[in-house]
Amino acid sequence: MQPDLLDRAQTAHALQQFRRRSPLVHCMTNDVVQTFTANVLLALGASPAMVIEPEEAQQFSAIADALLINVGTLTRERADAMRAAIDSARAADTPWTLDPVAVGALTFRTQFCQQLLTLQPAAIRGNASEILALAGMSAGGRGVDTTDTASTALPAAQTLARQTGAIVAVTGEVDYITDGERTLMVTGGDALMTRVVGTGCALSAVVAASCALEGNRLVNVATACAFMARAGSLAVTKSTGPGSFVAEFLDALYALNGEGLQ
Amino acid sequence: MQPDLLDRAQTAHALQQFRRRSPLVHCMTNDVVQTFTANVLLALGASPAMVIEPEEAQQFSAIADALLINVGTLTRERADAMRAAIDSARAADTPWTLDPVAVGALTFRTQFCQQLLTLQPAAIRGNASEILALAGMSAGGRGVDTTDTASTALPAAQTLARQTGAIVAVTGEVDYITDGERTLMVTGGDALMTRVVGTGCALSAVVAASCALEGNRLVNVATACAFMARAGSLAVTKSTGPGSFVAEFLDALYALNGEGLQ
Amino acid sequence: MQPDLLDRAQTAHALQQFRRRSPLVHCMTNDVVQTFTANVLLALGASPAMVIEPEEAQQFSAIADALLINVGTLTRERADAMRAAIDSARAADTPWTLDPVAVGALTFRTQFCQQLLTLQPAAIRGNASEILALAGMSAGGRGVDTTDTASTALPAAQTLARQTGAIVAVTGEVDYITDGERTLMVTGGDALMTRVVGTGCALSAVVAASCALEGNRLVNVATACAFMARAGSLAVTKSTGPGSFVAEFLDALYALNGEGLQ
Repeated sequence: MQPDLLDRAQTAHALQQFRRRSPLVHCMTNDVVQTFTANVLLALGASPAMVIEPEEAQQFSAIADALLINVGTLTRERADAMRAAIDSARAADTPWTLDPVAVGALTFRTQFCQQLLTLQPAAIRGNASEILALAGMSAGGRGVDTTDTASTALPAAQTLARQTGAIVAVTGEVDYITDGERTLMVTGGDALMTRVVGTGCALSAVVAASCALEGNRLVNVATACAFMARAGSLAVTKSTGPGSFVAEFLDALYALNGEGLQ
Repeated sequence: MQPDLLDRAQTAHALQQFRRRSPLVHCMTNDVVQTFTANVLLALGASPAMVIEPEEAQQFSAIADALLINVGTLTRERADAMRAAIDSARAADTPWTLDPVAVGALTFRTQFCQQLLTLQPAAIRGNASEILALAGMSAGGRGVDTTDTASTALPAAQTLARQTGAIVAVTGEVDYITDGERTLMVTGGDALMTRVVGTGCALSAVVAASCALEGNRLVNVATACAFMARAGSLAVTKSTGPGSFVAEFLDALYALNGEGLQ
Repeated sequence: MQPDLLDRAQTAHALQQFRRRSPLVHCMTNDVVQTFTANVLLALGASPAMVIEPEEAQQFSAIADALLINVGTLTRERADAMRAAIDSARAADTPWTLDPVAVGALTFRTQFCQQLLTLQPAAIRGNASEILALAGMSAGGRGVDTTDTASTALPAAQTLARQTGAIVAVTGEVDYITDGERTLMVTGGDALMTRVVGTGCALSAVVAASCALEGNRLVNVATACAFMARAGSLAVTKSTGPGSFVAEFLDALYALNGEGLQ
């Protein structure tokens, strides 16, 4: 079954909806990418909030439009707070998204993420190594970097989607987004993005936000990937390296309009 | 009683004093804005230090010129460390400033902030929803964003100032700074600043630093707001979005001189 | 004994080796500088990973090529995780580097760093006040800033190197790198770098990475200082303040080539 290219009109529509809805995203993410994640969501018109104390996280997940769980700098305390937030999100029908950073290579987070798979995530976003490891098909990458290409992990992504009910996005040079049956493909971005910390983690936050939108979730998650890929491609043409890229990327996300998308 | 516009000569004088004194600011702030907060203080010539272990926080507050308490990503451990730091600051006559991020919407931090109000903060800086909630006059905003305008919250700010003895700054499109009797008004800045995480939190750090200066505290806190508003207005004219804004804003703070202020 | 200037060919060779090896650096660093540290390592072609949960930190240090311990925002939990990571690194022959941020001024971190000195660090990088305090020759600086010049601390650095077996880099306007016998000197950089948070902390991460390279460790650590000094000098000429400096600095590190070094 061939992946479909994302339709341009769908992406433009999702962007309009994203800006109008301005999803309030409860981000429980790692210590390294908090600022960039918040700025990416703000540039796109969403509203990020990082709330981590267990009681507060539980309270806030029920208020928020979406919840992001990113295990990059997981601790036992943070894991407890995440579980509380997920329980509360599920009770409130708030969609939650998993970014299984470096899963496979490290035991504690691997076990934690495996447990979370039973809690009906709306979406899962990872690189090829992470998706393969999460599906139990490999031992994971080298640290946070992938050692596989996204297409290699597509069967694992499809299996994972069918097992969990989540939309699974396996991202890299090309992004594949699947519900286990249908698969969408998003191109764009640039290798320079791998030299900037947090581009993948921020994408997961946008995926989380997109799960709060109405309409087809597979398409919505794919459009989140398309926003980031398009802004990345634009920013690279204006950058002289990874430092200038960050500013250009946020400006491009802010300026994004339906016309410019794919 | 009409708010007064801040006097230009006063602001220029405060900036000179700020740079000469180079206040050492003990920042106990949230995980999302640490880098930006430090860079804002450094650009203005102050000296930030983030110390969070309870014993060390207690020790450091007595050495520092000012203490900032920002509850954005509060945890129980952090709350204990903050209380220890405040006790030590008060014993050493170090002024401390409260940024009640998202107070009202979340129970744990609301109770914590209410307790802190009895501990003689030198200043309190928040958006309209936060100041209204802290004064017990509303249930707070939607996450970290305000749903009210600063002028709506001015009566609450004045009440809070009289109750606590603090200078209260309620900031937004226009900033109001009050001691409960006299109120100063600062204009400037731009809506783009709401698309960059941490501009409000960094302002609170500058407010904290300004409390270490000699002279009238109401005026000093208002000048802190004026520094940020002026640098924001300048930076927006040179920016193409929230990404380029960050660099331009820090450069503008660094280049700020008395002439350019209001 | 006069310090030697670093040889240009050696630096160019180290940079090539650095990029080819792409060291996986386990960074246990402070909350304020995580993003910048990761972006500096990525710009230079290294691979950063921040892993902090005690079990995971222990597991990851054995996988990584190098370990960085930075005590800037030390807590008791973090100290335990750091000790576990160091033990694991030593068992796996992974070199580890200490950045004793603000040591001397604060008791808890001073005792912790003193204990770590017995655990055979491969390198230690600090400013003059920190190196003097670590060697027991002064009470430390004012917060995180140095109140001494690097040359003042050179005897302390040499003593510390002989006592611990580590390469000690005491950095400032001029950097001195010593094994206790031979001392190398690196010039470059700019005072503007002291107005940007994390330049010293990021240098320590590059020093940590350089300890994973083959060849003479004294020279490798000195070349790490040279990369940063050279990129700093280049970036300052293109910057209008500390905000634009950050982007220019990362771009300069990314573009660095052997020709441009010293």
